[in-house]
Amino acid sequence: MPAEHAAERTLKLRVEYDGTAFSGYQAQGQGERTVQSVLTGAVSLVTQQGVTLMAAGRTDTGVHDLGQVVSFTTTARVPIERLAIALNSVLPPDIAVAEAEEAPAGFHARFSAKRRSYTYLLWTRRSRSALWGRYALHVRRPVNVEQMQAASQVLVGSHDFAAFAKSGGDPGKTTVRDLQRLAIRRAPSGLILFKLTANGFLRSMVRNIVGTLLEVGVGDLPPEMVAEILKSRDRIHNPCAPVAPHGLCLMRVDY
Amino acid sequence: MPAEHAAERTLKLRVEYDGTAFSGYQAQGQGERTVQSVLTGAVSLVTQQGVTLMAAGRTDTGVHDLGQVVSFTTTARVPIERLAIALNSVLPPDIAVAEAEEAPAGFHARFSAKRRSYTYLLWTRRSRSALWGRYALHVRRPVNVEQMQAASQVLVGSHDFAAFAKSGGDPGKTTVRDLQRLAIRRAPSGLILFKLTANGFLRSMVRNIVGTLLEVGVGDLPPEMVAEILKSRDRIHNPCAPVAPHGLCLMRVDY
Repeated sequence: MPAEHAAERTLKLRVEYDGTAFSGYQAQGQGERTVQSVLTGAVSLVTQQGVTLMAAGRTDTGVHDLGQVVSFTTTARVPIERLAIALNSVLPPDIAVAEAEEAPAGFHARFSAKRRSYTYLLWTRRSRSALWGRYALHVRRPVNVEQMQAASQVLVGSHDFAAFAKSGGDPGKTTVRDLQRLAIRRAPSGLILFKLTANGFLRSMVRNIVGTLLEVGVGDLPPEMVAEILKSRDRIHNPCAPVAPHGLCLMRVDY
Repeated sequence: MPAEHAAERTLKLRVEYDGTAFSGYQAQGQGERTVQSVLTGAVSLVTQQGVTLMAAGRTDTGVHDLGQVVSFTTTARVPIERLAIALNSVLPPDIAVAEAEEAPAGFHARFSAKRRSYTYLLWTRRSRSALWGRYALHVRRPVNVEQMQAASQVLVGSHDFAAFAKSGGDPGKTTVRDLQRLAIRRAPSGLILFKLTANGFLRSMVRNIVGTLLEVGVGDLPPEMVAEILKSRDRIHNPCAPVAPHGLCLMRVDY
């Protein structure tokens, strides 16, 4: 008698991680501790099946995450209400599954995503912090938030963001993205928050945008240069370095 | 010729620490890593003088701090604008001096303080968190915030809080405190925040108040019992355990 043919399910996980000890979501080389490798191991262990994970955002080394979404297909029958608990019991403390749910057939965490939202945190007082050092960039110079807000508005909308992408991307692919929101504000804690939402982001795009605006904020780049850099569509014409990864956090993915 | 008589200065430090690896502010026994011992070492090293530190809040083991204030007197001539930088260069990463300033003679971090403010954080979803685990209590049951808010109001004002203090305190001392604010709200992140301000707090008072209100929130304690417990003025009549220290943070001290 043939074995019963188990139905294929598409499952969706919301995943959080502290990026400090991960070499990003996806490996660039062998032997690295990546989110993908740790999570694939946990899912394989719990479902007792090999699995290929799809992720909404392939975060870089050191970037944190409170809203990553990962999908995969499986014929395993693990009850959905037990899946997050089971995965969390085998995952290390710096990564957790916040939610697990069934998704419609054909759902793909990366290709079905409509919007991604990131937050970048920095603080500007002279002395270091005992609590924020892991999650926010320490800038030792005064930063003019209003000037950064004014300079940032040319970036909002659908543009070719090649000048804000990591150089050496795939030359065949579009570098146009729709930046729907770029808000900058000072929190009561003294932190400065950058909140960005787009249909998608190029590699290192958030860190390059924040790095460029920060040079405006500390007075090293004339505000009107932001539009010039955008128009150049070439990373080589952007003199500003990206900010460090540990201030960045993927907050949410919308479908 | 007699040595020049150096003037005595009173200095005030705002100090932050991650409480995870400290046995509280002040030692209960020998050989413990306390905030006081680490900070005393740093100040002695930088001023090249023995020093006695006074602190506004003697936080328990595991309690965090973003607003501790410490004072001391010294005849050392370290320029005030260099003091925080110098201290931070010798302090370990989990403690930092946020600010250093000259204080009027007679200023005492503990006795001059008018108000202390603490925040307690918890989150209630079923699965654990990769980022909040160190700074917030994980409660696996649904919590009714409105019910806790309603039940908390009898605590606001000047009362004898002996039923919310760690038992075995000094019997000669008053246990009356003026609780000026007790706000409870749900943050967009899903965290539940308790914010408490008083002229002073008894030992473990915040953790006992939150622990009692939490039992109301999960439905294990009738709300009207909070007033009964307060009126009893005796820890033995409070059936609720204090919540864990790692959700607690000293936020600010006012003078």
